[in-house]
Amino acid sequence: MPTTVPLDLHPDRLLPADPGLREVARRLYGAAQDLPITSPHGHVPAEWLAHDLPFTDPTSLLITPDHYVNRLLHAHGVPLSALGVGQGELSEAEARAAFRVLCSHWSAYRGTPVRVWLESQLVEIFGVSVRPSAETADAIYDQVAACLATPAFRPRALYERFRIDVIATTDDPCDDLAAHRLLRADPTWTGRVLPTFRPDRYLEPGRAEWVADVDRLGEVAGIDTGSYPGFLAALEDRRRYFADHGAVSSDHSHADARTDTLSEVEAGRIFAAARRGEATPGEATALRRHLVSEMARMACDDGLVMTLHPGVRRNHHGPTHAAYGSDVGTDIPVAVEFTEALAPLLNRYGTHPNFRLVLFTIDEDVFSREIGPLAGFYPSVYAGAPWWFLDAPEAMRRFRGAITESAGFDKTSGFIDDTRAFCSIPARHDLSRRIDAGFLAQLVGEHRLSEEEAHDTLYDLVVTNPRRAFKL
Amino acid sequence: MPTTVPLDLHPDRLLPADPGLREVARRLYGAAQDLPITSPHGHVPAEWLAHDLPFTDPTSLLITPDHYVNRLLHAHGVPLSALGVGQGELSEAEARAAFRVLCSHWSAYRGTPVRVWLESQLVEIFGVSVRPSAETADAIYDQVAACLATPAFRPRALYERFRIDVIATTDDPCDDLAAHRLLRADPTWTGRVLPTFRPDRYLEPGRAEWVADVDRLGEVAGIDTGSYPGFLAALEDRRRYFADHGAVSSDHSHADARTDTLSEVEAGRIFAAARRGEATPGEATALRRHLVSEMARMACDDGLVMTLHPGVRRNHHGPTHAAYGSDVGTDIPVAVEFTEALAPLLNRYGTHPNFRLVLFTIDEDVFSREIGPLAGFYPSVYAGAPWWFLDAPEAMRRFRGAITESAGFDKTSGFIDDTRAFCSIPARHDLSRRIDAGFLAQLVGEHRLSEEEAHDTLYDLVVTNPRRAFKL
Amino acid sequence: MPTTVPLDLHPDRLLPADPGLREVARRLYGAAQDLPITSPHGHVPAEWLAHDLPFTDPTSLLITPDHYVNRLLHAHGVPLSALGVGQGELSEAEARAAFRVLCSHWSAYRGTPVRVWLESQLVEIFGVSVRPSAETADAIYDQVAACLATPAFRPRALYERFRIDVIATTDDPCDDLAAHRLLRADPTWTGRVLPTFRPDRYLEPGRAEWVADVDRLGEVAGIDTGSYPGFLAALEDRRRYFADHGAVSSDHSHADARTDTLSEVEAGRIFAAARRGEATPGEATALRRHLVSEMARMACDDGLVMTLHPGVRRNHHGPTHAAYGSDVGTDIPVAVEFTEALAPLLNRYGTHPNFRLVLFTIDEDVFSREIGPLAGFYPSVYAGAPWWFLDAPEAMRRFRGAITESAGFDKTSGFIDDTRAFCSIPARHDLSRRIDAGFLAQLVGEHRLSEEEAHDTLYDLVVTNPRRAFKL
Repeated sequence: MPTTVPLDLHPDRLLPADPGLREVARRLYGAAQDLPITSPHGHVPAEWLAHDLPFTDPTSLLITPDHYVNRLLHAHGVPLSALGVGQGELSEAEARAAFRVLCSHWSAYRGTPVRVWLESQLVEIFGVSVRPSAETADAIYDQVAACLATPAFRPRALYERFRIDVIATTDDPCDDLAAHRLLRADPTWTGRVLPTFRPDRYLEPGRAEWVADVDRLGEVAGIDTGSYPGFLAALEDRRRYFADHGAVSSDHSHADARTDTLSEVEAGRIFAAARRGEATPGEATALRRHLVSEMARMACDDGLVMTLHPGVRRNHHGPTHAAYGSDVGTDIPVAVEFTEALAPLLNRYGTHPNFRLVLFTIDEDVFSREIGPLAGFYPSVYAGAPWWFLDAPEAMRRFRGAITESAGFDKTSGFIDDTRAFCSIPARHDLSRRIDAGFLAQLVGEHRLSEEEAHDTLYDLVVTNPRRAFKL
Repeated sequence: MPTTVPLDLHPDRLLPADPGLREVARRLYGAAQDLPITSPHGHVPAEWLAHDLPFTDPTSLLITPDHYVNRLLHAHGVPLSALGVGQGELSEAEARAAFRVLCSHWSAYRGTPVRVWLESQLVEIFGVSVRPSAETADAIYDQVAACLATPAFRPRALYERFRIDVIATTDDPCDDLAAHRLLRADPTWTGRVLPTFRPDRYLEPGRAEWVADVDRLGEVAGIDTGSYPGFLAALEDRRRYFADHGAVSSDHSHADARTDTLSEVEAGRIFAAARRGEATPGEATALRRHLVSEMARMACDDGLVMTLHPGVRRNHHGPTHAAYGSDVGTDIPVAVEFTEALAPLLNRYGTHPNFRLVLFTIDEDVFSREIGPLAGFYPSVYAGAPWWFLDAPEAMRRFRGAITESAGFDKTSGFIDDTRAFCSIPARHDLSRRIDAGFLAQLVGEHRLSEEEAHDTLYDLVVTNPRRAFKL
Repeated sequence: MPTTVPLDLHPDRLLPADPGLREVARRLYGAAQDLPITSPHGHVPAEWLAHDLPFTDPTSLLITPDHYVNRLLHAHGVPLSALGVGQGELSEAEARAAFRVLCSHWSAYRGTPVRVWLESQLVEIFGVSVRPSAETADAIYDQVAACLATPAFRPRALYERFRIDVIATTDDPCDDLAAHRLLRADPTWTGRVLPTFRPDRYLEPGRAEWVADVDRLGEVAGIDTGSYPGFLAALEDRRRYFADHGAVSSDHSHADARTDTLSEVEAGRIFAAARRGEATPGEATALRRHLVSEMARMACDDGLVMTLHPGVRRNHHGPTHAAYGSDVGTDIPVAVEFTEALAPLLNRYGTHPNFRLVLFTIDEDVFSREIGPLAGFYPSVYAGAPWWFLDAPEAMRRFRGAITESAGFDKTSGFIDDTRAFCSIPARHDLSRRIDAGFLAQLVGEHRLSEEEAHDTLYDLVVTNPRRAFKL
């Protein structure tokens, strides 16, 4: 094998291998390939677009902030520190060394979506034409770095180039959304960046920082959160503030999906105990579940779509968390349950015309058993796209294979990139369109759908479904 | 797109798209296509065949009673009342309006088995040749209605036309099986309609109506059910009555599959407490689990095959249940467990030569983990066909892929339509034969089975297996 | 159908049916087909190779000891006694009769891996050329028996012929490893047979024989196991003894995978209570979980790789266990959990450079949900190959489809045959290579991997991965 191997993207990549199906999939994908990107859930900071600052170096852009990339290197014995995680600003030498580590472990990514995303980015955005390896690392680093130094690679230019139609950020309820306001006030900015209300920390009275957080919430809202009614009013106020700044959804992730409600009296009693630091763990959990139901009640009023993604043991490896903080690749999924958990909430709000609930999971077992049947009955419920560990070709095929037969296509959310790796957004959406084209081609090839219907369906999956599910 | 699109059924629909596999699958399916239908579990009322009354209108036949059809429309915001559910007899205008709702939501069914079943019925039974849509709804309604007005579309004529060999109904133990007796006494009737013993309500002492139900059971059996031995004797008596009227199986669905046994003394004590309305929920559950084991004991004597299908949260949406009753599409699956749950029962009766236990699930997780291994060891245990939410092409493929490697083909039950939608029966069996033909073609194509063996296997799946599993 | 049907193995068996993918798969498989066999986990007795005694008869070789073969015959109503299980040495008539039972139930194995393994053995090892059936049973029996009578079919000759590079046995910690010593001392023996440390019984204080077992452990180690520190020291001593005799791993199977640790004081207290027979079931379980964590601690020192395979209800059918003992096909899987269960152990040792943990499961649900993410983050964790009920073509495909996207190929263990059916070893490894070749061909066909990378990957899966995961 030569040390330098060309890197090119086959135009038919990720389409079915069968020649007949590939023909169909090519036509379907071809019509969807250039449609604009709707990204109703993700983690790109609004500041990047508001200030349009250039990205500093290839490592800070492609490696350090992306736990998808880092975790597999860590699994091969690379310390996270060697990838820049938790190291503050990197020197050129450090950034280059980290980039070399990635390139020299290129084979570790065979068969993973990370490989697909990185190859797409290198080729399509930065024009790289050699496969990453120990030998080619420096040249690729230089090529990407040279790009980043030019105006065409600033965030706003890339936003245009990526054909992003709308993108959502994820924000703390106390956030003043200054960057979002800046963008809305900027006449030179024609894109659409929406905040998302992410209140998890305020709904978990068991957390050590909860009392201080609730105090701060009160300050920001200008409402006394010392009482339970005041706390609810402050949450309602902040939801309105977000809605007024363009938010279309609230996002929720707790250890489980339960939504058992309490009486107002009992909720108030536990709230007061929790304010005094005297709530038991059981009471704190009970109040959290009640508060998730309260979020649904508020959503019926203010119209924010609820997205739910439970079932992750956060910071599984304590020492890594202690050294590097959260969101560094040490979250591990656990089994999840929706049917019993959501019954209280859905009995109250499941048929409310103003309510939307998008269910994400990284426990595939619930695709056919729970999410499909729930989305196939409740008008408010949508099956969220395969997400996080499941945002990958085979998992996407399993998702469509498990969900479609009970919920159809129209009760799925459309693709969610859920990423802070800005340059990976087009690659992720493209991968999803290719896989959906292939799934639809299979239905056409088995005469279960006409090609004209498959064409319409793919358009809907890319354009109509996210708009419907997220009320865009 | 023209407003009128032709509707035709491709002869190769649902067969593998790969040309080589399709050739094989075509041959396999071709030999099985016209074999008679064995339907050992379903919900068609015996009265329909006994009295041979004409179906009133297209909506009452195809929409209102079929929760598979209705639930997805409900998921798209259509009230069940608009589909005739719980509305009593429909006026012609109401029936036509409901039919229009279905046709104008045709795209919601893309990729679902409901679409396959409805298309099959429309084309093959009623000769419809245009795709349902808002524009074509009235014409299709008229065409189906015209058919229903003719003798060729009465239940008995359709029974003949559908090539049904035997069909089972599902009946309350107190039912006098009058319709079944009528049919058996009718010299002009040459079909075979079998009752099925469905005792769930009598085995759940926690239900509010249980005492009254048990009283009624005693009256019908002519045995005093005031005591536990009398209660068991009454159940045995009714099982015999069913067996004498042709029943080959009893059918069971509870919240879980547990079969822990109690001592006779303890069972009697709880029974007495439950008669007084004084059993705790825990005691009621314990007695129910014991009674399921008792059903197995009785089955060793009277030979009725036991079918088990636990793991559904019935009437998940309370308001819908309150407004429309049960079986209207608001049942949602939950996780289920068989290995530990069935150990008590199988330790007692698992190798009894007269015992058969068919395990159905809508939690796919147990296919490879529990059902395959159980059916691959216990002579009494059969893997039930994929069922309810899993009665669909992709789920059927997953079933064969997950079950066959540990249990083979011969320990599976054969297809179960489980339907009250009479006209969908041929479509459902046909879909199953096509998918099994494709699965077998894959084995042939990978040289894991000779085509001659695949041919024999498909014949067995259609003819031999249901006869063996249900002792027909 | 003629009563005698030829039996031949298609060269492309188990490769993809699609002609394009098959071409690729053929090339990939062709390069891996003849690579030596690495078998780091299995149950072949070292005595067979040490003494090189001839196999007595076809039934004792192929049927009686192989619960994969027996359980499906039992599921079809054949008593285990008719297959020689628990019958001591078989007469020629008995052996022949059992062989006839197998051959006359040949169709029961359609679609199972047992069929693939048996066909491979019959054709490739024994030169059989007719399909087993009632009619051909005697002739096949005679042909296999004639082979077994010749020197070429003794264990050592077969070891050479099978191209086994290294094979591990599974052994009790008190075993003196005499057969292993014999082999190492034998200058005529050039193979490599490694013991494996399997301490389950000593780690379960709830077992009735535990006190006696721990006493015996003390005797063998020459260390007083009356105290908790002595018990740990004895375990450490025996681990060293095994390591000194070539062991590379310890193997663990308990009801669950939990690893919660106790304080030394609490562990010692429960140990003392258990020695007196006074530990509660809860205490016994707590000590067992702590001891599994202790095994990991010791592994960081002595370097033995830990393999974990929880989640089986052993001896599910009590009467069969009573009549025939363990390992006769009546073990049934249950659901399993790794994420929470392993957190204590992985927080302590998960990033230790000397630690390796290979996770096996027969609950597929954890493939994408838990094992992939764990192996994709922790440097110590490897995803074990699909195993036992999942050691089969479709399950292997599901394994690769579910694991690769989060853990890649390099964090998987390589194939594990886990068998005591010596002659099935080449067939099992061959099947695995064919399926992996097909999976990789699919990635090539979808342009997700170059053929050259796929070629390297298959080599790694066969050669590099088991060596890396098991430190060979």
